[in-house]
Amino acid sequence: MQPSRETAKKHSPVPRGPVDASIVPRFAGIATFARLPRLDEVDRADIAVVGVPFDSGVSYRPGARFGPAHVREASRLLRPYNPAQDVFPFGAQQVVDAGDIAANPFDITAAVAEIEAAARELRILADRLVVIGGDHTVALPLLRSVHEVHGPVAVLHFDAHLDTWDTYFGAPVTHGTPFRRASEEGLIDLEASMHVGIRGPLYSKSDLEDDSRLGFAIITSEFIEEHGVEAAIQRLRARIGSAPLYISIDIDVLDPAHAPGTGTPEAGGLTSRELLRMLRALSDLHIVGADVVEVSPAYDHAQLTAVAASHVVYELLSAMAPRDQSADGAQ
Amino acid sequence: MQPSRETAKKHSPVPRGPVDASIVPRFAGIATFARLPRLDEVDRADIAVVGVPFDSGVSYRPGARFGPAHVREASRLLRPYNPAQDVFPFGAQQVVDAGDIAANPFDITAAVAEIEAAARELRILADRLVVIGGDHTVALPLLRSVHEVHGPVAVLHFDAHLDTWDTYFGAPVTHGTPFRRASEEGLIDLEASMHVGIRGPLYSKSDLEDDSRLGFAIITSEFIEEHGVEAAIQRLRARIGSAPLYISIDIDVLDPAHAPGTGTPEAGGLTSRELLRMLRALSDLHIVGADVVEVSPAYDHAQLTAVAASHVVYELLSAMAPRDQSADGAQ
Amino acid sequence: MQPSRETAKKHSPVPRGPVDASIVPRFAGIATFARLPRLDEVDRADIAVVGVPFDSGVSYRPGARFGPAHVREASRLLRPYNPAQDVFPFGAQQVVDAGDIAANPFDITAAVAEIEAAARELRILADRLVVIGGDHTVALPLLRSVHEVHGPVAVLHFDAHLDTWDTYFGAPVTHGTPFRRASEEGLIDLEASMHVGIRGPLYSKSDLEDDSRLGFAIITSEFIEEHGVEAAIQRLRARIGSAPLYISIDIDVLDPAHAPGTGTPEAGGLTSRELLRMLRALSDLHIVGADVVEVSPAYDHAQLTAVAASHVVYELLSAMAPRDQSADGAQ
Amino acid sequence: MQPSRETAKKHSPVPRGPVDASIVPRFAGIATFARLPRLDEVDRADIAVVGVPFDSGVSYRPGARFGPAHVREASRLLRPYNPAQDVFPFGAQQVVDAGDIAANPFDITAAVAEIEAAARELRILADRLVVIGGDHTVALPLLRSVHEVHGPVAVLHFDAHLDTWDTYFGAPVTHGTPFRRASEEGLIDLEASMHVGIRGPLYSKSDLEDDSRLGFAIITSEFIEEHGVEAAIQRLRARIGSAPLYISIDIDVLDPAHAPGTGTPEAGGLTSRELLRMLRALSDLHIVGADVVEVSPAYDHAQLTAVAASHVVYELLSAMAPRDQSADGAQ
Amino acid sequence: MQPSRETAKKHSPVPRGPVDASIVPRFAGIATFARLPRLDEVDRADIAVVGVPFDSGVSYRPGARFGPAHVREASRLLRPYNPAQDVFPFGAQQVVDAGDIAANPFDITAAVAEIEAAARELRILADRLVVIGGDHTVALPLLRSVHEVHGPVAVLHFDAHLDTWDTYFGAPVTHGTPFRRASEEGLIDLEASMHVGIRGPLYSKSDLEDDSRLGFAIITSEFIEEHGVEAAIQRLRARIGSAPLYISIDIDVLDPAHAPGTGTPEAGGLTSRELLRMLRALSDLHIVGADVVEVSPAYDHAQLTAVAASHVVYELLSAMAPRDQSADGAQ
Amino acid sequence: MQPSRETAKKHSPVPRGPVDASIVPRFAGIATFARLPRLDEVDRADIAVVGVPFDSGVSYRPGARFGPAHVREASRLLRPYNPAQDVFPFGAQQVVDAGDIAANPFDITAAVAEIEAAARELRILADRLVVIGGDHTVALPLLRSVHEVHGPVAVLHFDAHLDTWDTYFGAPVTHGTPFRRASEEGLIDLEASMHVGIRGPLYSKSDLEDDSRLGFAIITSEFIEEHGVEAAIQRLRARIGSAPLYISIDIDVLDPAHAPGTGTPEAGGLTSRELLRMLRALSDLHIVGADVVEVSPAYDHAQLTAVAASHVVYELLSAMAPRDQSADGAQ
Repeated sequence: MQPSRETAKKHSPVPRGPVDASIVPRFAGIATFARLPRLDEVDRADIAVVGVPFDSGVSYRPGARFGPAHVREASRLLRPYNPAQDVFPFGAQQVVDAGDIAANPFDITAAVAEIEAAARELRILADRLVVIGGDHTVALPLLRSVHEVHGPVAVLHFDAHLDTWDTYFGAPVTHGTPFRRASEEGLIDLEASMHVGIRGPLYSKSDLEDDSRLGFAIITSEFIEEHGVEAAIQRLRARIGSAPLYISIDIDVLDPAHAPGTGTPEAGGLTSRELLRMLRALSDLHIVGADVVEVSPAYDHAQLTAVAASHVVYELLSAMAPRDQSADGAQ
Repeated sequence: MQPSRETAKKHSPVPRGPVDASIVPRFAGIATFARLPRLDEVDRADIAVVGVPFDSGVSYRPGARFGPAHVREASRLLRPYNPAQDVFPFGAQQVVDAGDIAANPFDITAAVAEIEAAARELRILADRLVVIGGDHTVALPLLRSVHEVHGPVAVLHFDAHLDTWDTYFGAPVTHGTPFRRASEEGLIDLEASMHVGIRGPLYSKSDLEDDSRLGFAIITSEFIEEHGVEAAIQRLRARIGSAPLYISIDIDVLDPAHAPGTGTPEAGGLTSRELLRMLRALSDLHIVGADVVEVSPAYDHAQLTAVAASHVVYELLSAMAPRDQSADGAQ
Repeated sequence: MQPSRETAKKHSPVPRGPVDASIVPRFAGIATFARLPRLDEVDRADIAVVGVPFDSGVSYRPGARFGPAHVREASRLLRPYNPAQDVFPFGAQQVVDAGDIAANPFDITAAVAEIEAAARELRILADRLVVIGGDHTVALPLLRSVHEVHGPVAVLHFDAHLDTWDTYFGAPVTHGTPFRRASEEGLIDLEASMHVGIRGPLYSKSDLEDDSRLGFAIITSEFIEEHGVEAAIQRLRARIGSAPLYISIDIDVLDPAHAPGTGTPEAGGLTSRELLRMLRALSDLHIVGADVVEVSPAYDHAQLTAVAASHVVYELLSAMAPRDQSADGAQ
Repeated sequence: MQPSRETAKKHSPVPRGPVDASIVPRFAGIATFARLPRLDEVDRADIAVVGVPFDSGVSYRPGARFGPAHVREASRLLRPYNPAQDVFPFGAQQVVDAGDIAANPFDITAAVAEIEAAARELRILADRLVVIGGDHTVALPLLRSVHEVHGPVAVLHFDAHLDTWDTYFGAPVTHGTPFRRASEEGLIDLEASMHVGIRGPLYSKSDLEDDSRLGFAIITSEFIEEHGVEAAIQRLRARIGSAPLYISIDIDVLDPAHAPGTGTPEAGGLTSRELLRMLRALSDLHIVGADVVEVSPAYDHAQLTAVAASHVVYELLSAMAPRDQSADGAQ
Repeated sequence: MQPSRETAKKHSPVPRGPVDASIVPRFAGIATFARLPRLDEVDRADIAVVGVPFDSGVSYRPGARFGPAHVREASRLLRPYNPAQDVFPFGAQQVVDAGDIAANPFDITAAVAEIEAAARELRILADRLVVIGGDHTVALPLLRSVHEVHGPVAVLHFDAHLDTWDTYFGAPVTHGTPFRRASEEGLIDLEASMHVGIRGPLYSKSDLEDDSRLGFAIITSEFIEEHGVEAAIQRLRARIGSAPLYISIDIDVLDPAHAPGTGTPEAGGLTSRELLRMLRALSDLHIVGADVVEVSPAYDHAQLTAVAASHVVYELLSAMAPRDQSADGAQ
Repeated sequence: MQPSRETAKKHSPVPRGPVDASIVPRFAGIATFARLPRLDEVDRADIAVVGVPFDSGVSYRPGARFGPAHVREASRLLRPYNPAQDVFPFGAQQVVDAGDIAANPFDITAAVAEIEAAARELRILADRLVVIGGDHTVALPLLRSVHEVHGPVAVLHFDAHLDTWDTYFGAPVTHGTPFRRASEEGLIDLEASMHVGIRGPLYSKSDLEDDSRLGFAIITSEFIEEHGVEAAIQRLRARIGSAPLYISIDIDVLDPAHAPGTGTPEAGGLTSRELLRMLRALSDLHIVGADVVEVSPAYDHAQLTAVAASHVVYELLSAMAPRDQSADGAQ
């Protein structure tokens, strides 16, 4: 009813945190991400978590339109302190749930425009956005919006697939094409962008050539199997350098065992432990935005995929948190 | 983000309705029941839908603590006009989602007190409550709260089970006992109360004798199979008469085929069509409150049970709506 | 490998039937509908069963794009003789599986045109089509195609929903609008068309007024609950009369208990037994085509919905079969 | 650990009943059917419930080998008094769980012999058997065993399928043939046997002719839809008369909505309420044995099918109970 | 019916083993753990496997009350010889299934007392207990019972969570607090206890400080990702030394991919292969008891979690087996 | 309808590939493996993928009879170019789907003979077979058939189990015995055969001794956990050498997290990434045939197991492809 927030002093300099689980059980209350305040409950936010329930750009299994609601429900277990990064992601910065961006389900072009406009508008109240998809189509308008502020950005893209294909059934903007379009539009830093976790069959060898030309280096899933996560971290950090960084995570970068609830599963993927470790290695980089996409609840079991996605968002928020806060008291 | 409500004029005499589905797709937005406004978005409400995520009173399968969230998600499909009752349940009255009542999961006595107190407090802002459980334990504090205002009420109880057992493992208040305790406390009208849908094995013949003494008549599921719904409606209307009426619906009154997601399933139950029909026959009665309980999501499939429960709530809200509104415009 | 057909004499006047289950177990072999021959295995067909795996017109749960494959797998149990209609649907006429019509998943307009063109082309080799959807959008191009041959047809529409809404998010052609568009285009017989099984909330009272104006009478699910199936059959037969008849069956006409695997479930629906009975009552009518749509496998369990859908198709094929064949021998 | 039985006085004339649920919660303890004593815990029994986990005779979905364990787990909710028949099935007679009969999974002939031998041996300690399958193959050895004692019996067979087919892939004894073999062997009373619930496609018209010749009358599922359960009860009671009665219930007589967990589902079946009502109408007949078969857990959801099956067994046990016990005290 | 045990000679010095799978198929028979004899079938036992179906101490998803039954069903596949430890766990010692301890589901305090009393009583007949939960609350009474015999013990605790929190909703004993209470009561060896697999968010930094003060060292899941299992084994063996050892395994130490069926899942966990390997490294230690808890079947799929749990119990039993038996013959 | 193949020029020297996904969406069309042509659509084939839907040899969970259909549906996502092996498996050689081999479900001996005969016949049109099971029984007739052409072959067997047991319930040929029978018949190269992934309990120590005598070396799952995949690859390549190689993959070699849909799951298995890596290391060996067995769909979730199996088949086909083709153009 009137859940007290874990840091209740509104309008104070201390960020308003999640609902206090010692007063309101975790399973109670209308679900916002991590039980955080809504955007309209605070003056402004450092980071807004926002859903984009759009999946009309998928080529195989649809259903990611229910992704934001599903991830919100699975995020009820997140607690305030992240020991793996030694940070209070909700205490060191004001994080809010900004609800969902409404996008036209019948017209990709209209939807992409709506998403871009909404992101721009949201940025008035929140410095950075972390988006929960929806399908990977949403990365294009989000990159356009980020580009307005930051110019070309390094894109660190975790995915089983390249997503740099060209048109599909005549459609230039689908979940298989956002990074080709983004590259063509000059939105990405061609020297600093990278795919991680790529695996599985392609249409042709030229897919890889195109991809390279569009600005991406690749760390395959096989590379990680063979050389380990630490080697991958070194490669991706070297590639990104100090560029402003946009992180785009297709949940299918995880093995189907770890993320069954997705649209185009490929065997041989990452474990959630590997992915979380890589994200933790990004905390000193200049992250300007992020998305976690392609969670398709109808194929999920026991919230397996959504739990993984909510932890991924949590590590992203932790990596984006400033490091100068005083401990404990900040939460 | 800033979803426009279907009737947007806040502070106007026209009730504020659900989010407009022609602007925000049904699958988008943080889930409130039927996408209705939250209680804090309006001045006051005629009816507050409120969740009570408490299931520590169950004797078999737990999990109804996740019922309110699950029913909210499944209620996204509800639309403004109910042709079966020819009424706009959200237009003829202000209905809101009041969130969840927090109840101690480890102490039944404490939880029951919290629920009663919260219900009393809620009634300041909302005339009537329709509760989504939670297990059937919650009916006791709700009846206590209703009794404060209305005195003894007729209880129309849809359930496979009598729920008039005495103690279980020494506990006087569990999901099997609310109506015995309520009867003992003088909360119910002994001449006007009734179970509908009772079926399945009992502990003893004396269960029925006790039950009768506690004030309940019974329409069994077998009666409905044999004599039909119309006969049941006549019996229950004759029994209730003009008494103030509290309706308590254990979703297991439905056959497990219609409501697999519940804690103590019994074969041979009602269809959802039969239950909805009976509820529609109550629209001219004096309904003072209601609950829909025992939805246990972990056992549900494809939201089967939650869709049924959300339609049940919708018919209750429709039956509770005043009939004098001008059509269409009211919405 | 080289499955012998139950009626093996190709090029003979005797129709080629399903694979013989006494030689090839039902669970073996690449799935065609009812294990019937493919269109390319026969010279021509009386009826072609064809899939239209298109679901980009849905407003809520997507996934019906996998409907045709799912129904084919569940149709392996269908046997040659239908005692309920006393007919051999695969013996009295040549029925084939014509595979799927490919439709653009990203462009509704293009897809609708493709479906219409493919249906026209298919009709060269097969007199009548029975379509497995896909979402209800596909009914519009199919009605256009039927209209070319038969002029305006009676539409007997089994559904929980009217599907005569106007635009949604600016899109004139979605799964909620096919019968409004069809009526506007003059494709349907305004005196002979009918919805059966309608139930659940609407947007407004005017939905019903519009619907009536567009040519439809309504048998609600409540009517069937109250008056029984026989009364419904008499009403629908009286309405249809001798008009050429197109039958469109949204599987959500069934209660979610009987058809969980669908996109917009509504409680209070028909049982599969009721639906099959109504279809059997149509065998002497002039059926010119049919569709069974909105089977969404990701929400199905144990093929529940697909088994129902495959039996629905089977009864349709039986109702369409000529009655003059000599028994048994025809199979 | 040392669960006290609800009627604890061993060796007394009072039957030993289920574990007392007021001392041991229903979800606790190693599962026997209805938490009854094992056969080795009593001197002898009136009725032994026994599992036959054999499914090597199935023609489509296997898995009924796990049926006995699954039904036992779902039977934990059964309580001592059956108000629908006004009887204490565990108090009026000694009912036990005799465990499972081990049958060779790789050799149908060997398995059938083992089942017959085990049934004969069991009958030394228990007057009558109620068997939980396993697939329908098991009915043949059980009928052989019953025949030894009672001669030809009326078979009341609830099923979607006739199960009077001849060989399949050369095998004379499968789950599709038990009643043809039984009839040929003179095990059944040709004037008093009956199928109830038959529906769905057949191989040929001659299936029905053969079936009639083999001694069966038929009440189809369509008959019940059209004429109601009461008419069916009258027909089946008239047919059975006073013959010794064996009841064989394939759980697929229920609609897939009520029993998804089975091997050859057919749409258009009975509700569990209808089936239970018919069974209750048999309590004054001379029941000599029974089986409930074809529960296939891998296709079940939320124990839907197993709950139905356990209630079916419970009604059978109730119908078999002597009616002269003094109420309550007997329990 | 009368299953012969794999080592049938009762009362002989040779332990009585599981039912012989060459006579009774694995899927047949009433389920005891690994198809072992019940406690009442032998004179006494070296180890009793016992269920504690209690889950009223959970803070999020309940359901572990069904854990013992679920693990028993999944343990049917366990065979007599463990090559990974080169031992016959059921041949080198008498292992039995002692059934379940009945615990009050409505009163944590009463339940904890009942569990402690039952454990003490069981120890009269069985030297050591291996418990299947139930939620983690049960570890407290088990540690109390162990302490009676062994004094303070090293606790090796595999879990995603510390479980050394203080009160929650005023309750001092829940599934989040057993090891704080145990430490406060002097039940554990403060120099030799350890958590393994810890990961995920905490409430505060002080959680870690408290935990350390209460006697636990920590091997995080991140440590294992970074340094490998071998390094973890060395650390935990060094910590435990020669102390009497109690092993407590919350199944959520496994990644949700490996153990979806649990109450508070955290991404980034161990694989079952890693956990089994660590358990095998404990075979020369002085294990005095163990528990495997938090298996919540309603969230499990295909017995995934229960198969893992049953293998975990099997490795524990193997590690507890004396090593001096003569091979093969001992079985 | 008339799906254009990705390489459409029939009768040309260029192999005919899968249906072109830019014309026919991946979810459309009747499912053949990887949407490849059927055998009857080409003149002859280098490799025929063929299903053997037989599971009557299983000792625990049945259902693999539905494996071929399930794997076909999950193989729709496979694309033409395999970057991990730098090869076009469908371009470098003609691969087809030869449908299913019909095998008697009631008679293992008959079935095995049918499979052997069908394999021999198929080999007239296709040089090599890659079989999708079905249970592991099918490996025996396939090895017999391979032996006819190649003499004794090295068997590289991925499995949790040895499958060199002797009889079970008197049956010499079941899914637990194919490699004992094959060894006894002289079908395998005793110096070059190997199991990979073995784990879990055995019946006795002598199982291992027998196995060794029958010609197998073993790489356990524990070995891979401890020493890594690279060490395993070196061992298996050293063992196989240049012998003609038959690869038999029981999907339960994967951990249940990666392959829940199988009949005898064992915890502690391989990841799909590890298995795919090992298969890729075989591309220069002389592979003469392969099978992938024990996919049991009723226990699968979100096609998890089937996606893994289809990728396994894809890597096998890639490893079997000649390496001399010119890139891209060949596809």
